[in-house]
Amino acid sequence: MRDFVYYAPTKVYFGKDKQKDVGKIIKEYGYKTIMMQYGKESIKKSGLYDQVMQSLKESEITVVEMGGVEPNPKLSFVRRAVKIAKETGVEMILAVGGGSVLDSSKATAVGAMTDLDVWEFSMRRAVPQEALPTGCILTHAAAGSEMSSSCVITNEEVNIKRGFGSELNRCKFAICNPELTYTVSKYQTACGIVDIMAHTMERYFTVCEPTDLTDRIAESILKAVVSAGRVLMDNPMDYEARATAMWASSLSHNDLTSCGRENALAVHQLEHALSGEFDFIPHGAGLAVLFPAWARYVYKENPSRFAQFARRVFDVNEADDKKAALIGIAEMENFFKSMGMPLTLREFNIPKDSMERLAEQCTFGKTRTIKNYVELDFERIKQIFESCY
Amino acid sequence: MRDFVYYAPTKVYFGKDKQKDVGKIIKEYGYKTIMMQYGKESIKKSGLYDQVMQSLKESEITVVEMGGVEPNPKLSFVRRAVKIAKETGVEMILAVGGGSVLDSSKATAVGAMTDLDVWEFSMRRAVPQEALPTGCILTHAAAGSEMSSSCVITNEEVNIKRGFGSELNRCKFAICNPELTYTVSKYQTACGIVDIMAHTMERYFTVCEPTDLTDRIAESILKAVVSAGRVLMDNPMDYEARATAMWASSLSHNDLTSCGRENALAVHQLEHALSGEFDFIPHGAGLAVLFPAWARYVYKENPSRFAQFARRVFDVNEADDKKAALIGIAEMENFFKSMGMPLTLREFNIPKDSMERLAEQCTFGKTRTIKNYVELDFERIKQIFESCY
Repeated sequence: MRDFVYYAPTKVYFGKDKQKDVGKIIKEYGYKTIMMQYGKESIKKSGLYDQVMQSLKESEITVVEMGGVEPNPKLSFVRRAVKIAKETGVEMILAVGGGSVLDSSKATAVGAMTDLDVWEFSMRRAVPQEALPTGCILTHAAAGSEMSSSCVITNEEVNIKRGFGSELNRCKFAICNPELTYTVSKYQTACGIVDIMAHTMERYFTVCEPTDLTDRIAESILKAVVSAGRVLMDNPMDYEARATAMWASSLSHNDLTSCGRENALAVHQLEHALSGEFDFIPHGAGLAVLFPAWARYVYKENPSRFAQFARRVFDVNEADDKKAALIGIAEMENFFKSMGMPLTLREFNIPKDSMERLAEQCTFGKTRTIKNYVELDFERIKQIFESCY
Repeated sequence: MRDFVYYAPTKVYFGKDKQKDVGKIIKEYGYKTIMMQYGKESIKKSGLYDQVMQSLKESEITVVEMGGVEPNPKLSFVRRAVKIAKETGVEMILAVGGGSVLDSSKATAVGAMTDLDVWEFSMRRAVPQEALPTGCILTHAAAGSEMSSSCVITNEEVNIKRGFGSELNRCKFAICNPELTYTVSKYQTACGIVDIMAHTMERYFTVCEPTDLTDRIAESILKAVVSAGRVLMDNPMDYEARATAMWASSLSHNDLTSCGRENALAVHQLEHALSGEFDFIPHGAGLAVLFPAWARYVYKENPSRFAQFARRVFDVNEADDKKAALIGIAEMENFFKSMGMPLTLREFNIPKDSMERLAEQCTFGKTRTIKNYVELDFERIKQIFESCY
């Protein structure tokens, strides 16, 4: 077990109707003027918007509204929000939505407390020193942003999607009502399940030694999420399955599954290049294509790790490690397929000659490699992209 | 899954030599004068005391020392510590030790910020409103007090051991170096393993419906801890096993394993009566006797829960739920026995006629029942005590 620091201070209010307490919760912290970010009009149709506004009003909280956060949240939106946050002097940012709204809110929270442009943090040219507090009402089980230290935004001027990690990015509170995800489409639900699994698998498939407890917790999350995903494909209103997915979303990305392990997030870096370049590709769908391809490329370096995954998560009964590893990867892929996920990049209708550009993006123009299992340079990343076209 | 609030804000610094950073860590919070509580002279013999004092000195932190915390920490000690904390105006309490030192420190931290006597909180006649911050350097994997909201002290004037829960009881930080537990005796190591398991099992064996994800995480902790316990009986210097036990100690009691479940801690209440009355009984040893006895008394109310435990934690291969449940309880008991734990109250040499008094203590003089599976009143609790004499 490697040394680690574990710090997941987000207070999670989990359960039915919890969004109606948002005003009370914010009032307890003493904030009186907040910015509320959200996405499209769907929260108005569902009634969530009215519930939230009502609760905020009852607690006499003044709200600066910023609707219109897009999937793969955009830098230009964040810059506008930062400007308004500074002008209005809001004391915190409330995100009502999924990972995109959350990450947009987190970036705004950091941007509001600095004279630097937020993109400087994504490009690692500066480290954030301060941020407004953030809180959220979660409407999608996927990104795990509600408890994570990460924040990913897209600079649409240059088609680059990039994240930065900071303890300042942790939400103060997260309101998680699984019922709010009942209306998430099958496809988006499946994308979310893949994202949750990927966050856990990225930490599981790393080069360090087994870590019995963290391994088993990761396997627990994976097994529970696979099971919940299967239920949800048939019955999207199953509360227990929605609740499992939502709680797994938080636990998969709050660092619990990397305690004592390396935290590489290699496949995420490939996917960020993909959905940064092709904005219409949902992050989870991109991961569904890339994860099995990456796994088949690297598993030979340590087949026993993949074999353990196969045996414990998908109950594969095969004594030979290499064979078990490959069966496990196929099971993962089959599961993604069973949920309607694409298996090839071709299915996104992206040009075949994009692979080189994607590999360049991943390597920041051939200036870096991605280390995990096999050190992936430009050539190898290109091969992985090509292998799943 | 029941609604829940999850809040585990303790920052955990886990790994080798981390105790040497304690001064730096405390300095970051800005505290300049602290009280340091510890137990017997063992931390002086091991060199830990010198390392800690050196680190605190380097960070120019003034230390008010309170050595001599006893196992089952005593109210009289806490009262003295509170007085000194108030007189010296310390800004935080640092616990260097195991669960007893931690709980003594937590009680002092609460006591220092009130005019009430600390025992009022244990007797539930008052609710703490404020506390000094606490931090710890952990030297024993057992109580989980390093991340928990609980604090248990013993009033030796009346032989009553009682705890109170409060978010104020959560440590700000916990320094967890598994190497510091190398010198813990086999017997005390085993007691710790039982305590960790009990914290998880108390939340697992409750009357609510299965909660797939929380169940699996609990089973992961149990499986990893059983495995680590077996290793440690043969090789107390196995770093991985010590690390597994230590991290499991934190996770078993930071409420992760009660998310979505009832949190009953029924057996702990029986044990608190036992070691409150008979101070020489280690908490873990008391639990090792009482847990199987309690389980055999209540399992019939929901054998499937105990059967799931048997199958998933001890790999019991038995289709019939009732049979599987009993085999699982026997496996638990055998495991305790294999670690040198007692199986009967007789082994503690306590008088046979104590059972009635213990049952009275548990029920606060027949004024309450303990609810979980079967509602346990005075008579039933007496029967459970008698069944394991």
